[in-house]
Amino acid sequence: MTTTTTPLETTELESKVRSYSRSWPVSFTRAQGSTLTAEDGRDYIDFFAGAGALNYGHNHPELKKVLLDHILEDRVVHGLDMFTDVRRQFLETFRSSILEPRGLDYTVAFPGPGGANAVEAALKLARKVTGRESIVNFTNAFHGMTLGALSVTGNSLKRGGAGVPLVHATPMPYDDYFDQVVPDFMYLERLLTDAGSGLNKPAAVIVEAVQGEGGINAARAEWLRGLSELCKKHEILLILDDIQMGCGRTGGFFSFEEAGIEPDMVTLSKSISGYGLPMALTLIKPELDIWEPGEHNGTFRGPGPAFATATKAIELFWSDDELERSTGTKGAFIESRFNQLAARFEDHQLVVKGRGLARGLEMPSGELAGKVSSLAFERGLLVETSGPSDEVIKLLPALTIPDDQLTAGLDIIDEAVAEVLSA
Amino acid sequence: MTTTTTPLETTELESKVRSYSRSWPVSFTRAQGSTLTAEDGRDYIDFFAGAGALNYGHNHPELKKVLLDHILEDRVVHGLDMFTDVRRQFLETFRSSILEPRGLDYTVAFPGPGGANAVEAALKLARKVTGRESIVNFTNAFHGMTLGALSVTGNSLKRGGAGVPLVHATPMPYDDYFDQVVPDFMYLERLLTDAGSGLNKPAAVIVEAVQGEGGINAARAEWLRGLSELCKKHEILLILDDIQMGCGRTGGFFSFEEAGIEPDMVTLSKSISGYGLPMALTLIKPELDIWEPGEHNGTFRGPGPAFATATKAIELFWSDDELERSTGTKGAFIESRFNQLAARFEDHQLVVKGRGLARGLEMPSGELAGKVSSLAFERGLLVETSGPSDEVIKLLPALTIPDDQLTAGLDIIDEAVAEVLSA
Amino acid sequence: MTTTTTPLETTELESKVRSYSRSWPVSFTRAQGSTLTAEDGRDYIDFFAGAGALNYGHNHPELKKVLLDHILEDRVVHGLDMFTDVRRQFLETFRSSILEPRGLDYTVAFPGPGGANAVEAALKLARKVTGRESIVNFTNAFHGMTLGALSVTGNSLKRGGAGVPLVHATPMPYDDYFDQVVPDFMYLERLLTDAGSGLNKPAAVIVEAVQGEGGINAARAEWLRGLSELCKKHEILLILDDIQMGCGRTGGFFSFEEAGIEPDMVTLSKSISGYGLPMALTLIKPELDIWEPGEHNGTFRGPGPAFATATKAIELFWSDDELERSTGTKGAFIESRFNQLAARFEDHQLVVKGRGLARGLEMPSGELAGKVSSLAFERGLLVETSGPSDEVIKLLPALTIPDDQLTAGLDIIDEAVAEVLSA
Amino acid sequence: MTTTTTPLETTELESKVRSYSRSWPVSFTRAQGSTLTAEDGRDYIDFFAGAGALNYGHNHPELKKVLLDHILEDRVVHGLDMFTDVRRQFLETFRSSILEPRGLDYTVAFPGPGGANAVEAALKLARKVTGRESIVNFTNAFHGMTLGALSVTGNSLKRGGAGVPLVHATPMPYDDYFDQVVPDFMYLERLLTDAGSGLNKPAAVIVEAVQGEGGINAARAEWLRGLSELCKKHEILLILDDIQMGCGRTGGFFSFEEAGIEPDMVTLSKSISGYGLPMALTLIKPELDIWEPGEHNGTFRGPGPAFATATKAIELFWSDDELERSTGTKGAFIESRFNQLAARFEDHQLVVKGRGLARGLEMPSGELAGKVSSLAFERGLLVETSGPSDEVIKLLPALTIPDDQLTAGLDIIDEAVAEVLSA
Repeated sequence: MTTTTTPLETTELESKVRSYSRSWPVSFTRAQGSTLTAEDGRDYIDFFAGAGALNYGHNHPELKKVLLDHILEDRVVHGLDMFTDVRRQFLETFRSSILEPRGLDYTVAFPGPGGANAVEAALKLARKVTGRESIVNFTNAFHGMTLGALSVTGNSLKRGGAGVPLVHATPMPYDDYFDQVVPDFMYLERLLTDAGSGLNKPAAVIVEAVQGEGGINAARAEWLRGLSELCKKHEILLILDDIQMGCGRTGGFFSFEEAGIEPDMVTLSKSISGYGLPMALTLIKPELDIWEPGEHNGTFRGPGPAFATATKAIELFWSDDELERSTGTKGAFIESRFNQLAARFEDHQLVVKGRGLARGLEMPSGELAGKVSSLAFERGLLVETSGPSDEVIKLLPALTIPDDQLTAGLDIIDEAVAEVLSA
Repeated sequence: MTTTTTPLETTELESKVRSYSRSWPVSFTRAQGSTLTAEDGRDYIDFFAGAGALNYGHNHPELKKVLLDHILEDRVVHGLDMFTDVRRQFLETFRSSILEPRGLDYTVAFPGPGGANAVEAALKLARKVTGRESIVNFTNAFHGMTLGALSVTGNSLKRGGAGVPLVHATPMPYDDYFDQVVPDFMYLERLLTDAGSGLNKPAAVIVEAVQGEGGINAARAEWLRGLSELCKKHEILLILDDIQMGCGRTGGFFSFEEAGIEPDMVTLSKSISGYGLPMALTLIKPELDIWEPGEHNGTFRGPGPAFATATKAIELFWSDDELERSTGTKGAFIESRFNQLAARFEDHQLVVKGRGLARGLEMPSGELAGKVSSLAFERGLLVETSGPSDEVIKLLPALTIPDDQLTAGLDIIDEAVAEVLSA
Repeated sequence: MTTTTTPLETTELESKVRSYSRSWPVSFTRAQGSTLTAEDGRDYIDFFAGAGALNYGHNHPELKKVLLDHILEDRVVHGLDMFTDVRRQFLETFRSSILEPRGLDYTVAFPGPGGANAVEAALKLARKVTGRESIVNFTNAFHGMTLGALSVTGNSLKRGGAGVPLVHATPMPYDDYFDQVVPDFMYLERLLTDAGSGLNKPAAVIVEAVQGEGGINAARAEWLRGLSELCKKHEILLILDDIQMGCGRTGGFFSFEEAGIEPDMVTLSKSISGYGLPMALTLIKPELDIWEPGEHNGTFRGPGPAFATATKAIELFWSDDELERSTGTKGAFIESRFNQLAARFEDHQLVVKGRGLARGLEMPSGELAGKVSSLAFERGLLVETSGPSDEVIKLLPALTIPDDQLTAGLDIIDEAVAEVLSA
Repeated sequence: MTTTTTPLETTELESKVRSYSRSWPVSFTRAQGSTLTAEDGRDYIDFFAGAGALNYGHNHPELKKVLLDHILEDRVVHGLDMFTDVRRQFLETFRSSILEPRGLDYTVAFPGPGGANAVEAALKLARKVTGRESIVNFTNAFHGMTLGALSVTGNSLKRGGAGVPLVHATPMPYDDYFDQVVPDFMYLERLLTDAGSGLNKPAAVIVEAVQGEGGINAARAEWLRGLSELCKKHEILLILDDIQMGCGRTGGFFSFEEAGIEPDMVTLSKSISGYGLPMALTLIKPELDIWEPGEHNGTFRGPGPAFATATKAIELFWSDDELERSTGTKGAFIESRFNQLAARFEDHQLVVKGRGLARGLEMPSGELAGKVSSLAFERGLLVETSGPSDEVIKLLPALTIPDDQLTAGLDIIDEAVAEVLSA
C-alpha cells in the first residue's frame, strides 16, 4: 500500500478538534500487542496503549478468540440492559475474581459506553443520596468531557470549551501540591469544620489515585487513607475514579488497593473490556444504590462483545498475581531508567513520577517535553505528554509489553531526551 | 438448556437502576435479524431493535463478515483520534454516499462512543460559537443522560436524577402540542422579538424530527421548516438530534431530509455502526467548526470495528433507494393496521402516530399500554412503551424485518390490545 | 440662584449608570405635593411620583409633621430588628387598618430597605418551603436588580448587566400577551401537567397585578384568579409583587384586591413609608413563615422615621374609602382623555392602558414616546416611558394630585402627542 | 411608663426571622449618642451602634439640625437618580474631603439603599468588565443577603437560606486562617498560575479589611498589599467591601488606607449617611465605569435627607484628623482592657482581636460568649457576638462614645466575663 492516499486529504472531512493525529501524522492500519503498524508498513512501539484503554495490548490473541466466537455464534451484540448470558457471566466473574478476593462489596451499574458516563452516574447518585449539589475535586484532575464530568476536571482549555460557567465543584490541592509544606487536607478540613467558611458542604469528593492527564501525579497511600477518613468523618461520599488507573495499571486491579481504602463508588472504563471496546462500570456500595429503575439509562449499556472479552480478560490476568508482580517489576525498571536519566541531566531537574506502569518524566517545560515526544515518534515510539503545561512525558505501556520492546522504547526516550537537553 | 441459572440471581450483582430486564425477565443469548433467542431456546420477534440502534437487524451477515475480517486481521480496534485506514474509509464513504448526494456539507467530529457525547459536543460548540449559554429545547424531548444532555431532556424522572438544578434550557411546545389551536412558534417567536420577555437569547435550538422517547411524535415538515427559518432569522443555531431517528428510521438517511432543511449541527449515533457497536458523530457546518485541537476529547473516538461495519452498512443500504422505499411501504402497512385497530376500538380513542418505521399507538393510559407490552412479551414479541406516561406502544422494528415477522408481530399486538381493551 | 453650578459638572463624579438625569437635565431642589422645583426656580408637574414611591405626593404636610416630631424627639432612627415603639405601632396599624379589614392574615418580614430585598426574601422563603429552586415569572416582569430579583425580571438590557447567566426562572406569557388568541395559562398548565415537559416544577410564581416597568399592562381580575387557582392546584406558591402597584396605586390598598385572591406572599415597598423613605415588607402567610431567626437579615430593617410616616399614612389615607374612590375617578378621567387622544389620532393606533392611577398610552414606537416625554419636560411636565421598547407613556401621578394639576399635565401630553404625531 | 404594651404581643405580627429582638427583648423608644432608652425608661449603653451604621452615635445634634432643615424646607426627599442640589453637594464634598485628600480617583454609583445593593452592583460591573463569572471570596466573609451578595458570604445558615445552590464563588483562606503556618496566598496564587487547577479564573476578589460578622478578623496591612499585588498581576479586580469597616471604623475613613492600596471598587453603606439612614455607594475606578445608562437601577438611589446628613457628617468629622486619632486612642484602650482580661483568665485562652474601634474578644465557645452578651444586657449594655460560632464578643461602639460610657461598658463586660468564666 502506498501513501498516495495521505491522511491529509481526510483531515478536511474531520472536525478541527482532532488532536492525536496532529502529533502522529501517519495512518495506522494494524496492531498487535505493543506494536502499531502504519499504512506504509512501519512499526511503532506503543507506550501509550490507547491512553490506558489497552492494558493487555492490542488485539490479544486469547481475547480475540473469544471475541470472534461471540460474533461468529451470533450472540447478542447490542442488548441495552436486558439480561444476556454474557452480561451475567461478566457480573459473576467480576464478583468472584475481582470483588470477593479483595473483600469488596459493590453493586455494578452499566452507566453507558465511556468513562464520562461512569463519572456522570456516580455524581448523580452521590447527589441523590446526600441531597447536596457540591463536589470537591482536586487540582489537575481529569474526569471527562461531558458537562457534569467536565465540571470536576481541572484543565482550563477543556473547561473553557463548556461554554457555560462550570459550577458545583471546588478544587482542593492534590497530594504534594505544595511540596509538602502544608499538612494534608489542612485546607479542606478547615473549610469543612468552619461553619463560616463559605464552602457548600459537598455531596462527594472525587479523586484519582494517580492522576494521569494531570501529569502522572501519584498520591501516597497515606494521603488516600487520610482522605477516606476525612470523608467518613464528615459524611461525604468518596468516589474513586479508576478509569485510567484501574484494571492493573498501578499493579493491583484497583489503584486504591495499596492504600487499603474502600471508596463509596468506583468508576471503571478504558481497559475493562480488555480489547479497547467501549464499556464502563460504576461500582456502588449496596446501601447507596437507591436509584429508581431507569433513572439513569442509555443505549450502549449491554455491549455483548465487550462483556465476552472483559470476562475472559479477568480470567486470564486476574486469577493469580502474576500480572501484578510483573507490573511492579516493569514499573521499577522504568523508574530506574528514569532515575538514571535524571541523574545524567541533573542540571535540568527532571522529575521522575508515577507508580506501577503509569510513569512520568517531568521535563523543564512543555515545549521540551513536546520535542522529546516528536523525536520519539520519528524514531518509532508513540509516547504522549500530559500535565498542566504538557511538560510530563507520560508512559502508559501495555502491562503485557515484552521486555525487549520496553527496553527499546526507553532507549529511544533516552536518546530523545539527550538530544533535546543537549541542544 | 435449562433455566437453572436464572437471571434473578444475577440481579443482586447489578444496580437497581436496570430497567428493560424488569419488563422482559428472561436472559437472551443469540440474535439474528429480527429474532432474539432466550437461554431457554424461545424465540422473540424484535419490534424494539436496540431502541433504534439496530436498524439493519441483529448481526447482519454481511456486516458480520466485515467485522470478523477486521478482527481476524488485527486491524486497529482502539485508536482514539489517531488516523487509521478504517477511519478514513468511513469518512470518505460517509461523505460520498451520504452527504454529497444530499447536497450537505458538514465536517465530522467523533465526540465519544454514545449519543449523549454527540449532544454534549454540539451544545458546547454552539455555546462557543455564539457566546451564549441558553438552549431552547422542546417538550418531551430526549437527548441523553449526561448533565448537559439531560438539561435539554424533558422527562421529569430522569431530570430529577441529576441531583442539581438543570439550568440553561427553556422548553418550548413541540409541534401539535396544543392540538393545532396555536400557531406554530407563536410563543417562541414572541419571546425572541420582545426585548422584555425574560428569555435568555439562546445559543441553539435542539430538536428531534420525530420524538421517540417522547411518544413517537412526528413533527410536520412545514413545522421543521418554520423552525429552521426562525433560527436563521434570529441567528440561533439549529441542532438536529438524529440519534434515534437517523440512519433511515423515518425513510431517508436523515429524518430531516423530507423537510428540506439543513441544520447547523446534526447528531448521529445508535444505528450508525450498523451492528449495535458504540459510535457517535457530531456533524458541523464547516464555518462553525472553530474548535481548538483537543478542546473536546475522549477515549473511545476511534472504534475500528464500528468504522468497518459503518462503512459497509452505508455501502449496502445507502447506494440506492431500495431501503428508503421499503421503509415507506412497511411503515404504511403498520399505519394501516393501527388505523384498523383504532377503528375497531374507537371508543377508546387510540391515537395512531409516527412516520416511516417509527410508529406509535397511543393507549388511553400508561397502565393499559404496559399491559399490552406484557401480553405481547408473553406471546413472543418485544415491544416497548414510551411517552410522558408510557402510554404509547412504540414500534421501532429493524428496517430489514421480513414481512412475515412484521405481520406476525402486528398480529400479536392486535391480540394484546384486544385482550386489554375488552377486559 | 443662577445655573452657574450646572449639573453637568457633577456628572463627572457620578457613574455613567445614571439615567433619569439624562432625560431631565436640570437639578431639583424643592418638592411639594405634585410639584418639583428646579434650582432655577422653575416648577414641574410630577406625573412620575418617584416611580410610584410617592403615592401621597412629595412631603405631605401631615406626614412631615410626624417625621419632624420623630427626629426632634430623638426617637430611634436606626434599629435593625430590635423592638421599638414605632415598629410596634406600624405593625399594629398595618394589621388593624390594612390586613384585618381585608380579611387577610400575614406575618410581616422587614427584609431590608428596598423592593429588591422584599423580592429576594420572598424567593428565598418560597424555595425553602417547597424545596424547589425554579420560579415562573412573566414576560415583561420587573422585580428588581439584585441577582435573585433580576433573574425573574424580563428586560434584556438589565438582565445582560448580571454578568452571569440568569437561571432558575422560566418566563410565561402575561395576560393578553397574544391578543387573546390563546386561552389563559394554556401553556403553563400544559407544562405543569406533562411529566415530560422539561419544566422544572416551580417553587413559586411571581407576578405583578399591573406591570409598570413592563408598559402598564393590567392583568384582568379573572386572569389573576385563574393564576391563583392554578398555583393552588399544583401546590406552587403565589408571590404577588405589589411594590409599584400596591399602597393604593390601582385603587385598593393592594392591587390584587379587585381579583379577590389571597397570594401566599406579597411584597411591598416604594410608597409604604408614604414619604419616599426606604422601607420594604414581605408579607407571608403564617404557615409558610418557617424561617430560622436571622436566616435572612440586613442593616436597614428598622427605619424609625419610615415606621412613623408609614403608620401615619395608613391612618390618614386608609381609614375610609375616600382615596380609593378618588383614585378611581382620577384614573377614569385619564382614561377618558387618553381615549379622546387615541380617537383623534386613530391612524396611529395609540393604545390606552392601565388601571387606577397607573395609566399608559402606547405610542407607535419608543422613539415617538421619547419625543413626547421630552416635549412634555420642556413644557414643565415630568412623565416617563416604559415597556420593552420604551414605547408607553407612563403616568404614575400622586394619588393626591389636585384636579387642576392633573388636567394641566394631561393638556401638556395632548400638545406633545399632537406635535409628535403631526410632524 | 408601664410595660403593659409588651413587645411580646407584637411578635406575632412579625416573621420568625427577627433576631436582635430575641437577644434584647425590650422595646426601645429614644436614642442619643451612645445611649438607647427603652420604653420602661431604662438606659442602655450601646456598644453595637446599629451594627456599624451609627459611627457618629444616635441622632447626632448637628446632623439632626441639617436633617430637620432639609425636611422643614421641603427639599427633595425622594429623587431616584435625578439631579438634586443635595446630591451634587454630597458628591462634591465626598470628592473634595474624602477622595482627593487620599489621592483616590473614583466615580460614584448610587446602587440602591443598602449595602447588599452596593455589593451586587460591584459584582455585576466586575463581571461585565472582565467577561468572567467567578468571584474569589474569603472564609468568614459577610457581604449581604441578596442572591449575588450571599453567594460570596461565608455563613452556612445564611447560605442555606438561599434555597438554590450558591455558585460562581470560591472561598480562599483569609489572613491568618491557618495560624501563619502557610504563606499568604500560597493556595490562591498556585491555583491561578496552574492551568490545570480547575479554578475558574475570577472576575474579582472581594474582601473586607476587617471581617466584622466573621468574628472581628483584622487582616494585616501586608496581607492586603499582597492581595492587591496578586490581583494586579493576574488582572483580577479587587473589590474592597467597606460597608461595615469604612467611615472611620478602623481609624481612617477607609479601612484600607493603612495598607496603602487602591482597590478597583469600594462599597460603602451603613455609616455613610451619618444618621443611620439607608444609603449606599459603589466607588468605581473611572476606567472601569463602562455601564450603560440604567443598566443597574433602583428606586431609592436619591435619598435627599441622607445626602444632607452625609455631607454634613463629612464636614464635621473628616475635615481634620481628630476623629481618626480619637478612634486610635479609644481602640487602644479597649485592646488594653481586653489584654488585661485575657491575662486574668489566661487558662481560658481568650483571644483579643481587631483594629481601631472594631474590637473582639474571642471566648472559648459561642455559648459562653452568648452568656456574656446576656449578662451585659441585664447590666445595661448592648453588645453582640459574631464569628462562625458566635464565639466573639463584638464591640462596635460609636466612634464618638464618651470615655466614661466606654469605660462603664467595658466594666460591665469585665464583670460579665468574670461571672461566666468563674461559673
